[in-house]
Amino acid sequence: MTHQRRALDTLEIAAGNGLLHRRAFLTSGAALAAAMTGYTLSDTASAQQLTDAPWSTKAGIPIPEYATPSSYEKHVVRTLTNPKGEPRTQHARTPHHLVNGTFTPNGLHFVISHSGAPDIDPAQHRLVVHGLVKQPLEFTLDTLARYPMQSRMTFVECGGNSAPLFSNEPVQANVQTIHGLASCAEWTGVMLSTLLEEAGIDPKAKWLIAEGADSLALSRSVPLSKALDDAMIALYQNGERLMPGNGYPMRLLLPGWEGNMNVKWLRRIKLVDQPGMSYYEARTYAPVLPNGKAYQFYFLQEVKSFLTHPSPGLKMSGPGFYEVSGVAYSASGRIAKVMVTADGGRTWAQAALQEPVLPKAFTRFRLPWKWDGGPAVLQSRAWDEAGNVQPTRAEVIARRGQTKTPVTNPTAFPSQHYNGPTSWAVARNGEVTHVYA
Amino acid sequence: MTHQRRALDTLEIAAGNGLLHRRAFLTSGAALAAAMTGYTLSDTASAQQLTDAPWSTKAGIPIPEYATPSSYEKHVVRTLTNPKGEPRTQHARTPHHLVNGTFTPNGLHFVISHSGAPDIDPAQHRLVVHGLVKQPLEFTLDTLARYPMQSRMTFVECGGNSAPLFSNEPVQANVQTIHGLASCAEWTGVMLSTLLEEAGIDPKAKWLIAEGADSLALSRSVPLSKALDDAMIALYQNGERLMPGNGYPMRLLLPGWEGNMNVKWLRRIKLVDQPGMSYYEARTYAPVLPNGKAYQFYFLQEVKSFLTHPSPGLKMSGPGFYEVSGVAYSASGRIAKVMVTADGGRTWAQAALQEPVLPKAFTRFRLPWKWDGGPAVLQSRAWDEAGNVQPTRAEVIARRGQTKTPVTNPTAFPSQHYNGPTSWAVARNGEVTHVYA
Repeated sequence: MTHQRRALDTLEIAAGNGLLHRRAFLTSGAALAAAMTGYTLSDTASAQQLTDAPWSTKAGIPIPEYATPSSYEKHVVRTLTNPKGEPRTQHARTPHHLVNGTFTPNGLHFVISHSGAPDIDPAQHRLVVHGLVKQPLEFTLDTLARYPMQSRMTFVECGGNSAPLFSNEPVQANVQTIHGLASCAEWTGVMLSTLLEEAGIDPKAKWLIAEGADSLALSRSVPLSKALDDAMIALYQNGERLMPGNGYPMRLLLPGWEGNMNVKWLRRIKLVDQPGMSYYEARTYAPVLPNGKAYQFYFLQEVKSFLTHPSPGLKMSGPGFYEVSGVAYSASGRIAKVMVTADGGRTWAQAALQEPVLPKAFTRFRLPWKWDGGPAVLQSRAWDEAGNVQPTRAEVIARRGQTKTPVTNPTAFPSQHYNGPTSWAVARNGEVTHVYA
Repeated sequence: MTHQRRALDTLEIAAGNGLLHRRAFLTSGAALAAAMTGYTLSDTASAQQLTDAPWSTKAGIPIPEYATPSSYEKHVVRTLTNPKGEPRTQHARTPHHLVNGTFTPNGLHFVISHSGAPDIDPAQHRLVVHGLVKQPLEFTLDTLARYPMQSRMTFVECGGNSAPLFSNEPVQANVQTIHGLASCAEWTGVMLSTLLEEAGIDPKAKWLIAEGADSLALSRSVPLSKALDDAMIALYQNGERLMPGNGYPMRLLLPGWEGNMNVKWLRRIKLVDQPGMSYYEARTYAPVLPNGKAYQFYFLQEVKSFLTHPSPGLKMSGPGFYEVSGVAYSASGRIAKVMVTADGGRTWAQAALQEPVLPKAFTRFRLPWKWDGGPAVLQSRAWDEAGNVQPTRAEVIARRGQTKTPVTNPTAFPSQHYNGPTSWAVARNGEVTHVYA
C-alpha cells in the first residue's frame, strides 16, 4: 500500500490550528477518506432507492437564446449603493464569497459609475486619437475590428477598494462590502500602441488624456510609457461585448492600474505634454497623508490577497475538513507565493496556486484545513514576482492614517490603496466575522 | 529609424494572397501605419469638435444587480432548434462569429438537452457514489463545498458538432450552424478521483455509469481510467454556478471527451465492471461506418480548428488589412501550431497563438492579412502537442462516408466526430461563403 502510505505522509500539519500541507488533497484522496466525516450511506441498496425528485419526473425548462443563472441563484448579485440611479455615484460590488475560480463572470463584475451607464449606439460611437500626433485618427467599432487583437486576463480594482480597513475598529461586513470593488476578466481588443503608432507620436508627447462618452466626460491622464507598454482598447469582456456598466462599446484598459484610469465608454485619446489635472486625479485620487502632503499619480494596485472561503456569511457546519481559498493579485506581475495562517499570524502554511498563474490577474489560492472546532483567526499574505509583499495593517496605517468611524464611502480619506491583510475570526459556532489581528 | 525599418521588414508576405507574418502587428504599428487605409481626420480641430452624442448629455441607465449585455447586442444569441421546448431534443448553438477571446461566456455556451433543463432545487439535490465501492457515499452541494477544488479551462464539444461537413455539397450556413456545438469555459469543482478514493474502489471496477437527474435520466459509461485522470464534478462555470442548461447544480466534466458523456444534473456515479450500453453509447454515438462496422466508445474530440473572423455573415468592407482569427482545440493536449491559407491550400502561413495555450482548451489564433480585393479561399489547419493533425476532408469522408443532402441534424449518419478543415470563400464584393477546397 505504498500509495496510501505516501498519501498519509503528506497529510502532515503545515501550520498551527490545523492547516494542512497544500498538496495533501492533490496527492491522494485515500488519506482524506480516513479523515472526512461521514455522509456515508448504509449500503448500496439505499443508493439505488433514491427517490426521484419532482424535476426528474417531467420535462424541464426550455433552453433560452441567452442563458441566465438558475432562479435558485437570485441571491448571487452585486450589492448596489444607488439602485435607483439617483444623480450621484453608483457602486456595484462583486460577491467574492459566492463565486469561485479565477475570474469574475460578466454579470457580477464590479462597477463604479458617476452617472449610470450611457446607452451608446455602437454604430454611432467614435474614438478619436488627437493632440500631439502627426495625423489625428477617427475609429468606428467596425474599423477597430480590422485591427490585430490581443486577449488578456487582468484584474481591475478601484483605488478605493478595501477602504473599510482604514477604520480604527473592524467594520462588521462581508468580503463583498470590503473587497467587492475588484474583479478579473479576460479582455480582448486592440493594443493602444498600435493606434498611437499609426497616428504618429509627436516627440513632445509625454502623457495622454483619456475621455469617456458618459455625461460626466470622465477623464484621466495616463503616462505615455504605460500607453505604449500594455494598454488596450478593450472591445470584449470574457468573450462577449463589454457590459454596459463596464464601458460598452469600448474602454481603456491599463492592466494593474487604478480602476478609475481605465476610462469607460472611451471616445477621445489626446496626446499632451503634461497631465490634465482632471477632477479625479487632482482631488479624489490625491488624498492628503498624515504628514500634510498629498499623494498623487499613485497608479499601481499593489500586491493584495484576501480569503473568500470561509468568510463572513459562510457559516461553517461543524469541525472537520474545509478548503480555505481566496484570491491574490498584483500590478507588478505574477503572484509568487501566498501564505495562510489559522492562528492569527503565529504560524503560516504555503497555499497552492491555481495554474495558470498569469501576470496582473486574479490568482486563486487554496489550502486544506482540518478545523478542530475551536476559535481560529484566518489571514492570507501574498508576495509577487517582483518581490513585493503585502504590508501589515499597522504599516499601512502608519503611512496613511486611519478613520475613526466605520467607512464604506471611498471618497472619505484615508480610503485608498489599502493592500494590507484581512482577518476572519471563526467562532466555536462556526460564525465568521471580521477582526483585526 | 532602426525601429521602423525592422517593423517594415517584418511586414513580409508569409503566404500567397496576402497573408502576412504573424508578428507583423506585434512588432510595431509603424509599418501598419503606412499600410492602413484612411479614417484620418483633416486636422486636430475636427477631433475637438466631435458633436456630443445624445447619451453624452444625460444620465445613463442605473447599474443593475446583475449585468446583461447592451440592448444593441440582442442579436448575439444562441440559435435554437426547439425554442418552445417541444418533447424532443433542443440544440442551442454558440455564435462563434460574434464572440472573441479564448472562451465562451455563460450566456452563449452551447447546450444540447433532450428534455429541457430540470429546475433543480440545489438544497434538495443529492449525488450518490455507489456500486463497486467499499462504502457508498452521498453528497449534498454543501458537503462538496468543503472538498478541495480545482479550476480548469476546457472545451466541451458535442460528438455531432460540425456534422454539416459530411454533406456532399457545402451547406450554405455560418460558423454558428456548422461549429456551434463546441464551447469553452473555466470549470471549478471537485476532482472525481477524490470522491472515488474516499468511497474506496473495488478492484473489480473498470467503468462507471454516470446518470443525470433530468427526466430522461441520461446515462453514459466512462472508463475508470478517465475518472481517475482528470474528471471533475463541476460546480462553477466561468466563476458562477453552472447555467441551468449546462447541468446546474453539478455535472460530470471529462475534459476533451465527447460532450454527451459530460453528464449534466449529475445524481449518480455507479462503479461497474463493464459498460452499461446506454441508449447514447449503444445507438446514437455508435454510428455505422461505410465498411458495415460501427464505431463505438470513440471518446476523444480530436484536434480541430475553424476560422471565426472572417466567416459567413461578416461581410468584408473593401480591400486592405484584416485580422484572420479562429479557435483550435484538441482532446490530446495543447495546440502546437495552426497554419492558415488564403489561396485554398496552395501556400500556408503560421498563425500566432494567444497565450496562455492551455491543454484541452480553446486556443485563439490570429494572423494579419492584406486582402487585395480579389477572390480568396481561407482555411485553417491545427496540430496538437501529441503530433496529431487535422485530417483533410477527403480523408474523413473516406473513413466515414458522406451524406447526399445537406445535414444539420446530428442524429443522421455519418454525422459525428468530423475534425477536418472548413473553407470560407471571400468574393470580390466581400461576401464570405462556405465552400469545399
